[in-house]
Amino acid sequence: MKRIKTAVFGTGFVGRIHVEGIRRLGNVEVYAIGVGPDDDGPKFASELNVERVSSDYHQLLKDPKIDAVHVCTPNALHFPIAKASLEAGKHVLCEKPLAVSVAQGRELVELARRTKLRNCTFHNLRFYPMVQQARQMCQSGELGDLLIVQGTYSQDWLLYDTDWNWRLVSAEGGPSRCLADIGSHWCDAIEHITGKRISSVCVDLATFHKTRKRPKAAVATFAGKTLRPEDYDEVLVDTEDYAAVMFRIGDRTRGCFTVSQVSAGRKNSFRWEIYGTKSGLAWDGERQDELWIGQRSAPNQLLLKDPSLLNPKARTYADLPGGHSEGYDDTFKQLFRRFYNSIENPNAEPDYPQFADGLRQLTILEAELASHQRRGWVDVSTER
Amino acid sequence: MKRIKTAVFGTGFVGRIHVEGIRRLGNVEVYAIGVGPDDDGPKFASELNVERVSSDYHQLLKDPKIDAVHVCTPNALHFPIAKASLEAGKHVLCEKPLAVSVAQGRELVELARRTKLRNCTFHNLRFYPMVQQARQMCQSGELGDLLIVQGTYSQDWLLYDTDWNWRLVSAEGGPSRCLADIGSHWCDAIEHITGKRISSVCVDLATFHKTRKRPKAAVATFAGKTLRPEDYDEVLVDTEDYAAVMFRIGDRTRGCFTVSQVSAGRKNSFRWEIYGTKSGLAWDGERQDELWIGQRSAPNQLLLKDPSLLNPKARTYADLPGGHSEGYDDTFKQLFRRFYNSIENPNAEPDYPQFADGLRQLTILEAELASHQRRGWVDVSTER
Amino acid sequence: MKRIKTAVFGTGFVGRIHVEGIRRLGNVEVYAIGVGPDDDGPKFASELNVERVSSDYHQLLKDPKIDAVHVCTPNALHFPIAKASLEAGKHVLCEKPLAVSVAQGRELVELARRTKLRNCTFHNLRFYPMVQQARQMCQSGELGDLLIVQGTYSQDWLLYDTDWNWRLVSAEGGPSRCLADIGSHWCDAIEHITGKRISSVCVDLATFHKTRKRPKAAVATFAGKTLRPEDYDEVLVDTEDYAAVMFRIGDRTRGCFTVSQVSAGRKNSFRWEIYGTKSGLAWDGERQDELWIGQRSAPNQLLLKDPSLLNPKARTYADLPGGHSEGYDDTFKQLFRRFYNSIENPNAEPDYPQFADGLRQLTILEAELASHQRRGWVDVSTER
Amino acid sequence: MKRIKTAVFGTGFVGRIHVEGIRRLGNVEVYAIGVGPDDDGPKFASELNVERVSSDYHQLLKDPKIDAVHVCTPNALHFPIAKASLEAGKHVLCEKPLAVSVAQGRELVELARRTKLRNCTFHNLRFYPMVQQARQMCQSGELGDLLIVQGTYSQDWLLYDTDWNWRLVSAEGGPSRCLADIGSHWCDAIEHITGKRISSVCVDLATFHKTRKRPKAAVATFAGKTLRPEDYDEVLVDTEDYAAVMFRIGDRTRGCFTVSQVSAGRKNSFRWEIYGTKSGLAWDGERQDELWIGQRSAPNQLLLKDPSLLNPKARTYADLPGGHSEGYDDTFKQLFRRFYNSIENPNAEPDYPQFADGLRQLTILEAELASHQRRGWVDVSTER
Repeated sequence: MKRIKTAVFGTGFVGRIHVEGIRRLGNVEVYAIGVGPDDDGPKFASELNVERVSSDYHQLLKDPKIDAVHVCTPNALHFPIAKASLEAGKHVLCEKPLAVSVAQGRELVELARRTKLRNCTFHNLRFYPMVQQARQMCQSGELGDLLIVQGTYSQDWLLYDTDWNWRLVSAEGGPSRCLADIGSHWCDAIEHITGKRISSVCVDLATFHKTRKRPKAAVATFAGKTLRPEDYDEVLVDTEDYAAVMFRIGDRTRGCFTVSQVSAGRKNSFRWEIYGTKSGLAWDGERQDELWIGQRSAPNQLLLKDPSLLNPKARTYADLPGGHSEGYDDTFKQLFRRFYNSIENPNAEPDYPQFADGLRQLTILEAELASHQRRGWVDVSTER
Repeated sequence: MKRIKTAVFGTGFVGRIHVEGIRRLGNVEVYAIGVGPDDDGPKFASELNVERVSSDYHQLLKDPKIDAVHVCTPNALHFPIAKASLEAGKHVLCEKPLAVSVAQGRELVELARRTKLRNCTFHNLRFYPMVQQARQMCQSGELGDLLIVQGTYSQDWLLYDTDWNWRLVSAEGGPSRCLADIGSHWCDAIEHITGKRISSVCVDLATFHKTRKRPKAAVATFAGKTLRPEDYDEVLVDTEDYAAVMFRIGDRTRGCFTVSQVSAGRKNSFRWEIYGTKSGLAWDGERQDELWIGQRSAPNQLLLKDPSLLNPKARTYADLPGGHSEGYDDTFKQLFRRFYNSIENPNAEPDYPQFADGLRQLTILEAELASHQRRGWVDVSTER
Repeated sequence: MKRIKTAVFGTGFVGRIHVEGIRRLGNVEVYAIGVGPDDDGPKFASELNVERVSSDYHQLLKDPKIDAVHVCTPNALHFPIAKASLEAGKHVLCEKPLAVSVAQGRELVELARRTKLRNCTFHNLRFYPMVQQARQMCQSGELGDLLIVQGTYSQDWLLYDTDWNWRLVSAEGGPSRCLADIGSHWCDAIEHITGKRISSVCVDLATFHKTRKRPKAAVATFAGKTLRPEDYDEVLVDTEDYAAVMFRIGDRTRGCFTVSQVSAGRKNSFRWEIYGTKSGLAWDGERQDELWIGQRSAPNQLLLKDPSLLNPKARTYADLPGGHSEGYDDTFKQLFRRFYNSIENPNAEPDYPQFADGLRQLTILEAELASHQRRGWVDVSTER
Repeated sequence: MKRIKTAVFGTGFVGRIHVEGIRRLGNVEVYAIGVGPDDDGPKFASELNVERVSSDYHQLLKDPKIDAVHVCTPNALHFPIAKASLEAGKHVLCEKPLAVSVAQGRELVELARRTKLRNCTFHNLRFYPMVQQARQMCQSGELGDLLIVQGTYSQDWLLYDTDWNWRLVSAEGGPSRCLADIGSHWCDAIEHITGKRISSVCVDLATFHKTRKRPKAAVATFAGKTLRPEDYDEVLVDTEDYAAVMFRIGDRTRGCFTVSQVSAGRKNSFRWEIYGTKSGLAWDGERQDELWIGQRSAPNQLLLKDPSLLNPKARTYADLPGGHSEGYDDTFKQLFRRFYNSIENPNAEPDYPQFADGLRQLTILEAELASHQRRGWVDVSTER
């Protein structure tokens, strides 16, 4: 009953889902958590039922019992913690975005290559069964040649100028907000599903709230909704609330998507549509178990998640029988299972997004920001 | 029991819906039809049960009994027939696009102004009850300041390179296909609903099938689907199958939409989403009686068409009680009712799209085509 | 340009849809309307643009110009007017229910047989394209042997005890309300689609509002919603607001449905599901153009109305191309077209519900009411 | 870091979800598993990463380290194992149905009362956030007086006569199949949501496949779908594939539902609709995060699971932010958290279904089976 020992850095919304998700595996122990300098460590340790807690990640990384780490801190800390972890010989699973610049991302990819440690950028949305089904259908040619890709990732949790979160501060979140946080999920999913690369982009960004009201006390992601305006600082916002992106992908495919954190009523509306010369696909992450399959000369299909109806390769991503819904947190389990399996089996090919995939999204983001500046098309570097 | 007498030019898919729609009014008689030079006029007259038929529109327009005409021919004939009709003193309802160039459109607007005759560009999609409801909600401020407008108009009837229709020939359909045919509906609806003007556009066009196979015999719009490849001519296609458009509208609102006639499974998927600082709206023309209302701090709403629940101004566009669906052809009736009412009541303000609205769409289209050429943003002329 | 002349009796909600629907055909003239004794006849004649108007149906039926009549009055008048019309040699299209008792229905069927006049009970809901598609799929064996039929017909327009309509008075509407008005539509559709006969029923009725408040002025069907409580008479209600029905149909098929006029939020929710040994079907009349096809070993399908995808026999019920919605009023047109075609072509087989089908529904209704009385199963007479 | 130690009996489909769900809590250890006599215990222990394994539950229950047990075996073993567990002083969480007869259920309730141990019948479907939201809305009076409750629980995994599972054998599964397995979930949810008691029932059962083909090798629940007919024994089936139930609930509310395991295309279609004098609710477990709220005089609502929009009491059942889906397995976590919390806190009121609730469902089931026999209405015992 040997268990791999892991440490989770960050105890916000997503860090807690990591802790719970890791435990589902059975063969991995959440051994330690890394908390922020102002956090009450012992309280977290007791609440989350973990053995060790520390606000000093350097200190924690010296513990030889720790095999792997999860980096779930604000974006700007991804790079230093991931780097220190690799240098300490730990396998690293890092939340997206991998870093806040292409240069940082490149350094992490290089370091991971050198240390030969397992490395993962947490693009968990790939791990919905229906996303995998779409991938298999696209890549097996069931759609024919791809023509059009379109969709959106829209949320409303930053609609009001009284909504506040660390992601609004570019010093903590990086120079892009909407495209970095959710646009990167959209692009990663599309490249993963289609097996094609976005080659150029033309982008329009908007910051609707030029200033926002920062409350004096800190607020967790998504928690802002229940706050009421009280004591605020007026803060300049230099990251985008919205972006539209036209793009070219692969040889002849055209694409278009929007991202927004200010779309009233859209809680986490991650949608894409893919049309080929034979058939089309559409998916909505809020109805995650349904895949629409469009046909010209036959009825459209509505495939409800059911292992017996999925492509054999997609089937391993679904643990429950047909019609028994698997949700957002199940994508965590699916990814973690594969990540830790690759740690236990040094010869296993990684079947999850790695640091190179995180760097890829930073590269696309760099082109997106440049395109908005130039008000025209910009090529995406093909560096790997 | 005086009845207004009208003539319908064009007997294709849409011409026949006009004939049927006019008759629903009760006070207008379909007195004549104008057929094509190769058509069997008497057969059409008998089939459609009309008194007069002619393939010579000049001849027909001399008939003083005719009060009004509907122009439902291929696009390139809109201008000459509409012009001749106005000159003959007839009220004119013209299918969209009003013409195939801005110059033609401008001439028709000017002529209509001079002759003081009733004139309508047939943007019938405004006449869905839920589109009117959206318009009232937007313009009354229920959505707050508008931030984002997005959507698509996607079809699949030209997916295969064996699909053929006169619209594919730029000499008959004009220099743009997808944007002119369905993009113009999308933009007209958005400007009508929001009350705002598109001020600049950035466009990406694609013609996926550079050549298509033209059958030796003629084929009606939408009817191509049941054909089988047989004897074809290979024809170069110079109009777009797909377009993506980013745009600015009003003072601060951003927008993005796609149009396509090659999206497998999308039969007539006219969708838009509008997000403001207070709430959002979404509509899908294939579920025409439902309006989604997005809210940040309250449950979203799903308004099913029901006169008792509509804004009083929108209510007059719904003839049937709640849950009794009204479809695509009912938009014809609603528009015709208003058009003929304005003929019967010379003092009535026209409450339907006029030639000026048709010109407006041609002006936007001109900017869209220029934007694709320049691969960048182009301003839309504000001429009225 | 000979036109059949028809008279419409009744000018309420449904009578007006009849008038408009008849006119769509082009070869039938709405020549006369029959109004109620308290109606302002000339006003109706002018508003509806018809030549003759009368509140005396006997008088009107003497007019030899009238070829056919539509009976759209309150239920209790169906029998006398339909009877008089047949006796006057007119073809008769009668709203459902055909009569308010089995005995009356039987007399009308017999009279129609004797006079050899065209006769139709207006079960228009058969005429949705997707209902016809379902019928073709069931009867061609695509579903295998049928096992289960279930669904509902739910509305909310009588939810409040201040809602008033003539249908609430059994003297005008007959001894059953919910089952007679909408349950009969449900059963007719199911027998039509499956080609099987309901053989026994077990029923539970409920009248939630034992009394209702009748306003002093009359109120049109569905219009009550915009009224405000003012001056009312308290009236005892002896017809049901709700019914549940379990039934046997055909050899081995089981069924179950509910009807209600007090289900908040359901405007006109006519839904059925049919499951066979091979596949299943589901339909919702508020999304009339979509047919769900359930499969065990393949993805489910969502067939959007598109003539090119329909069974050839169902295709003739769809006039518009794929994705162009056809609504409730289009079922009127489809039925009328077939009814008048059978008048013009004396040899044509009637392809619409006849008086015998109306009698059939009265027979089922009689068993349903008896079952509720006995609190157990009752066989349905197989008389034709 | 004290952890409660638990044992899980049964390693089928549902047993494995229990194991994974328990681990998510962090403070409970899956210490042992009980396997069947023919199972390879060590293999299971290694695969599931648990310390102890045994096929002798009496033996296992002697282990003083075990605090609690989960009974996830075939139905007929629920009673003996639950009984032995209570007698051994263990807290017991038992899958539904609690037992295969009312007498057994009564004995367990009595024993639990005597031993004062925590006891739970696993009606996990109560634990969807939107089910809790519905409960709060019903019980706070937002719906007004309840009038109608209807719905279905339909599956298709036993559609073919080649589908096999232990549940088909009444000796293992009990005298009822469909009603016991999924009907009990439906009734439990409805009584939980409405706070009312089903008082009488009128039931129609059907066994469409009188015989089924049993494969020579055993097959897990839901796994049958991928099997192919090979070597089978023909077996008589004496439990129902389908049931329709009309019922009375509370003072004036009427109800109706169906259950089926042979409805092609319905994978796990658990749906209910509840209508009151003020508003209505509808829910579909395959779109578990959406609650439809029907209104007569205002737009309907579509509440997407979002803690900030839920009733405060329902909010604690949702761990993820708005639009981040929570699935079927999350109901396990929610229930387990409350069950183990009540073990850690002896004074806590149990906020989960107890053995008495399991007995309640057995009592309803007994009436349902009696009603089918008598072909009429049967009262449900009010014993608690």
